[in-house]
Amino acid sequence: MKRRIQRIGIVTAGGDCPGLNAVIRGVVKTAQNDYGVEVFGIRDGFVGMVTYKGDERGKILTNRDASGILAVGGTILGTARGDVFEAAGTKEGDYSIFEEAFSSMKIDALICTGGDGTQRMAQKLHTHGFPVVGIPKTIDNDLMETDVTFGFNSAVTIIMEAIDNLHSTAMSHHRALVVEVMGRDVGWLALVAGVAGGGDVILIPETPYEEQAIFDCALERSRKGKRFSIVVVAEGVKPNDKNAPQKEIARYLSSLIEKETGIETRPVILGHLQRGGPPTAFDRILATQFAVKAVDLVMEGRFGEMAAIQGNDFVSVPISQATKGLKRVPLDHPLIRSAVSVGTSFGSREIDKRQKDKS
Amino acid sequence: MKRRIQRIGIVTAGGDCPGLNAVIRGVVKTAQNDYGVEVFGIRDGFVGMVTYKGDERGKILTNRDASGILAVGGTILGTARGDVFEAAGTKEGDYSIFEEAFSSMKIDALICTGGDGTQRMAQKLHTHGFPVVGIPKTIDNDLMETDVTFGFNSAVTIIMEAIDNLHSTAMSHHRALVVEVMGRDVGWLALVAGVAGGGDVILIPETPYEEQAIFDCALERSRKGKRFSIVVVAEGVKPNDKNAPQKEIARYLSSLIEKETGIETRPVILGHLQRGGPPTAFDRILATQFAVKAVDLVMEGRFGEMAAIQGNDFVSVPISQATKGLKRVPLDHPLIRSAVSVGTSFGSREIDKRQKDKS
Amino acid sequence: MKRRIQRIGIVTAGGDCPGLNAVIRGVVKTAQNDYGVEVFGIRDGFVGMVTYKGDERGKILTNRDASGILAVGGTILGTARGDVFEAAGTKEGDYSIFEEAFSSMKIDALICTGGDGTQRMAQKLHTHGFPVVGIPKTIDNDLMETDVTFGFNSAVTIIMEAIDNLHSTAMSHHRALVVEVMGRDVGWLALVAGVAGGGDVILIPETPYEEQAIFDCALERSRKGKRFSIVVVAEGVKPNDKNAPQKEIARYLSSLIEKETGIETRPVILGHLQRGGPPTAFDRILATQFAVKAVDLVMEGRFGEMAAIQGNDFVSVPISQATKGLKRVPLDHPLIRSAVSVGTSFGSREIDKRQKDKS
Amino acid sequence: MKRRIQRIGIVTAGGDCPGLNAVIRGVVKTAQNDYGVEVFGIRDGFVGMVTYKGDERGKILTNRDASGILAVGGTILGTARGDVFEAAGTKEGDYSIFEEAFSSMKIDALICTGGDGTQRMAQKLHTHGFPVVGIPKTIDNDLMETDVTFGFNSAVTIIMEAIDNLHSTAMSHHRALVVEVMGRDVGWLALVAGVAGGGDVILIPETPYEEQAIFDCALERSRKGKRFSIVVVAEGVKPNDKNAPQKEIARYLSSLIEKETGIETRPVILGHLQRGGPPTAFDRILATQFAVKAVDLVMEGRFGEMAAIQGNDFVSVPISQATKGLKRVPLDHPLIRSAVSVGTSFGSREIDKRQKDKS
Repeated sequence: MKRRIQRIGIVTAGGDCPGLNAVIRGVVKTAQNDYGVEVFGIRDGFVGMVTYKGDERGKILTNRDASGILAVGGTILGTARGDVFEAAGTKEGDYSIFEEAFSSMKIDALICTGGDGTQRMAQKLHTHGFPVVGIPKTIDNDLMETDVTFGFNSAVTIIMEAIDNLHSTAMSHHRALVVEVMGRDVGWLALVAGVAGGGDVILIPETPYEEQAIFDCALERSRKGKRFSIVVVAEGVKPNDKNAPQKEIARYLSSLIEKETGIETRPVILGHLQRGGPPTAFDRILATQFAVKAVDLVMEGRFGEMAAIQGNDFVSVPISQATKGLKRVPLDHPLIRSAVSVGTSFGSREIDKRQKDKS
Repeated sequence: MKRRIQRIGIVTAGGDCPGLNAVIRGVVKTAQNDYGVEVFGIRDGFVGMVTYKGDERGKILTNRDASGILAVGGTILGTARGDVFEAAGTKEGDYSIFEEAFSSMKIDALICTGGDGTQRMAQKLHTHGFPVVGIPKTIDNDLMETDVTFGFNSAVTIIMEAIDNLHSTAMSHHRALVVEVMGRDVGWLALVAGVAGGGDVILIPETPYEEQAIFDCALERSRKGKRFSIVVVAEGVKPNDKNAPQKEIARYLSSLIEKETGIETRPVILGHLQRGGPPTAFDRILATQFAVKAVDLVMEGRFGEMAAIQGNDFVSVPISQATKGLKRVPLDHPLIRSAVSVGTSFGSREIDKRQKDKS
Repeated sequence: MKRRIQRIGIVTAGGDCPGLNAVIRGVVKTAQNDYGVEVFGIRDGFVGMVTYKGDERGKILTNRDASGILAVGGTILGTARGDVFEAAGTKEGDYSIFEEAFSSMKIDALICTGGDGTQRMAQKLHTHGFPVVGIPKTIDNDLMETDVTFGFNSAVTIIMEAIDNLHSTAMSHHRALVVEVMGRDVGWLALVAGVAGGGDVILIPETPYEEQAIFDCALERSRKGKRFSIVVVAEGVKPNDKNAPQKEIARYLSSLIEKETGIETRPVILGHLQRGGPPTAFDRILATQFAVKAVDLVMEGRFGEMAAIQGNDFVSVPISQATKGLKRVPLDHPLIRSAVSVGTSFGSREIDKRQKDKS
Repeated sequence: MKRRIQRIGIVTAGGDCPGLNAVIRGVVKTAQNDYGVEVFGIRDGFVGMVTYKGDERGKILTNRDASGILAVGGTILGTARGDVFEAAGTKEGDYSIFEEAFSSMKIDALICTGGDGTQRMAQKLHTHGFPVVGIPKTIDNDLMETDVTFGFNSAVTIIMEAIDNLHSTAMSHHRALVVEVMGRDVGWLALVAGVAGGGDVILIPETPYEEQAIFDCALERSRKGKRFSIVVVAEGVKPNDKNAPQKEIARYLSSLIEKETGIETRPVILGHLQRGGPPTAFDRILATQFAVKAVDLVMEGRFGEMAAIQGNDFVSVPISQATKGLKRVPLDHPLIRSAVSVGTSFGSREIDKRQKDKS
């Protein structure tokens, strides 16, 4: 039986990123304007949802709450990470804590905004009969079934601007700079921001890299009179050297390059800077449209689905499909080909081979 | 007979925009790296191509010429507008001036980078047997057969940031601000930047607007305690009032709103600011991929075609198709629906009706 | 008798500018932290102060109200322009309206934040026995007795970035661009932003300009192979031509330059964009220190004085001195000499002569 | 005997920073326009000056070389660090390598642009009879005898924008963030950028800090409902704990704060990002005026002096005075008082005491 929706809950979970507030705004306004339904903003992610009591849990979001937040980074609702059952002091799989939450907040459906982990949680809730809809969010762009998510373009922009600004130091000092960016498992940020910033070497987790290829690239540039190089590396690439540290690949590579090539090299680790600041136009548009789509899905009773963009179309996909794995960079992605054509090295035999085969 | 390509000419024509240098860089590097072919950079558009003599005409672009320009706005080749035959002092349709240009520059093919006017010229050259390939460029996003062109996202970003910054003045002074943006015939910039900036009213040339609807929106906001409004207007919308001036619609609307609502109102005309500055990440990626595609098209002998993006695919389309009309905003575009859902008024009966029918 | 201060009122009046919220934050926090005194925030300038009733008039600003506003442009208090006596429906000079305001808000002193007009009003209040202290604010930098005010550096930055971005269009199209900036009576913005942006011609109200000198400069640059020019003009310069329009000098000059030199020329009018956006670091630091100084002045009972910066020192000056005229650009200012040395033309015989005499 | 100046050499040495190109432009244009003297641009600092041969050493800078670089970060001349005598393969103090350099480049004077190390080298050259003039440059603002140098305001701006952007993450996740900025010996950057960014705790090398004070500040904020804190720390502060690492104080403090307060805490290390990007308006103006002043000093034969700004005046000071120590933050600096008044903690007994004594 389709339950009549009078109040929708919204939760933002996982790491923050630009565009979350645009989603909140979009959900509140669409629910009110198009359906006359109210929206309850839940504080501090799933953890807050099941641990806070009374007013702490959140509040009905008015039109005024949703005003002036489109351009603001982060989430006005707060977010949190961690195991919900542990946080609630109950045993794994005790979904009564969510029943209690739905009931005390009087929400008839829940919009879950977040990345891979959040959508997995949403899927579990769906399996246990909760009326949930997903909105995809990841800086890493690793969610399946959607071409892209908001947060990604903003992070790409921050990284690209950092690379732009680092160029003057690299050139003035004839240095190599190794810029470490997010991407524990996938290389989208390194690839797209690296090409946008004109990186000379881009290293992604999807393919093993040869250290020698990096040295060769820097030395070859030097020989041609370009006495600087920018190496963009995803945090999750694995060094060949078994003794290499698991963390801070940029430091490791930096000292290696300097030692092997004689070129002064410095690491730059962007870290949390990649999450901050106002969302780009691209992300505001995307987040707003995801929000509208998600409210539509709720009102149509299409629970267990997630808003997504495929080509030019806003569609919905089963959350179960979106979370069945990570969306990795395929080595035959056209942007890799374009990057190679403009002279970028990926330090990868597979990619080199692929380019050679093709021509 | 397929001519063997040894040198490709490249010309940038029409209005400048961010991303042109990314195209030039991409063409030079791809031609050299992938095909061992050299690129001749032609100065100052088609007009320069047929009027300049000797070294003035341009030069072979080396790898060094193509370095360090990815992030720079405008075009290092220069551009120009105007009738080529008139400029060359010959009669309309005398294509011998182009024969002379191709021959003196020793180019075997020509990549024409530009918007609607440029592609029309490219199509004429194609019809007259010249080996040309097109790369689409428009700030307005009005070219058919490609979902988007570079320059558009950069312009959207500039407009959005302007709207962001104007909000503080509008709020502090309880004013309405009317922001006039490019778009003589199409409303893409007003629509996308308006939604990204959170504009309260968006007026586009694709649908007539009711002045009263604008007044109502501003007054309604005032009643709800939001004593400011941002009106985003494409320069090409037509005022209802027959006596209204043809130019500077923002001024006209501004004084009208102030008179009719009593709310202090000011116009802001963004003008040439919309063309400037470094390209966004989106546009650098797009321009680079268009460049690679265009060189491929040249080397495959697919003349008369233009690089394009459709969904996620870089494809080619006949230039004749791309120039058969202008790509206007369809009134059932999902972004219009989303904009309405978050409370934006288009001052348009057609759009209001469409929204009502739908629900 | 020195009245014991328990509550300070703060008003922001005149045009908005970046830094006002930094002042409000600084006043609230300093009053609380250093003196245990509360601050009443008055809405919508002097006009709001004397016309609103009850809660509309404003409220006690808590620490929370003052949080998160440092980086936000505009003023959370709102501002207004216009004649207070007229607005209050009483006769010119009827200061009982202010007595009523002080008494109903229970404020023991008033901090008046604003430019020339605001400080004149503050001086009148002082003369009529009201305990007022001034904080200088002007985008134009025309207040006497203080080297600089907040808002100015932010506006300079916006103009400079606009000029930076316009360069690519000017160069690509071989055009002259005439950029009109604020400055009805003084040329500080045009001078400082013009030098920072590398303007080729700078026109300021402090000295008459020769049109021919502008043409000569553009033509001379063209001859040397620099086929573009940027002309920065303060809105308040007076054209030689008696028939010239009083407004929009950029349009007038633009068509004149194009006609006389044959160089394509376009006007760009920055208008309200110059007031917007987050304050620069310089302005946040300045605004915060003015705020602290103003609270000190209040607590020391030094009414009728205005916070000011002279050299490296935060001092106080009589408001009467600060408003006795406008601070104009002296023609022997070192920045004019520097600008001339790097090749800038002021189109001015006086400045040319001065430079010649000196050498 | 005053040597007639026909050619001035210019060298940029030490770390790069925004504004160096503005200096180069200013020197070239002023020398040409005001004195008809040519400028020789020396490549890669003092090391390049004494090790490169022939054309590698640099070149006469034309007006064209000096065009379009005002807004570009870094130095077009390149820079280098290291011991010149060692680099030249000679013994310490063998100034004949400079005689050879002056003579082969045919320069009659040398403008040395750089920080503390560069000015010390300049002073040594002066002592050995070389005609040198200094232009101060430091991101750290630690040069004596000048109120400020270019590069500083640009770095402050980058740090402030980073803090602005980090606020959204800190707030969304209820975290403390520890932002490490430059400043091995002096705290100017941490102080000024920390106040501009609204940092809650600022730690500078000029005064020892109490770890407990940091914990208290974060906990106190939490109690008041502000569940996030931003700690700005100069890299050169010394931890109390003797076992603490010498490097990366942000990491050390971050884990300490998390452990002691239970508040999730993350480090952010800005590193080389602080040197990059286009110079701010403030730095362009300053750099341009230093350049003009330095050329004047050369032409007046005032060797051994350095351009400086004191209050509002561009003056010259003996290089020997400017390098006699480091300009540290005095603990009674008015900005410290202002910072304390708006609620910033310096975690310092000395500063607490000073504030208490004062009141």
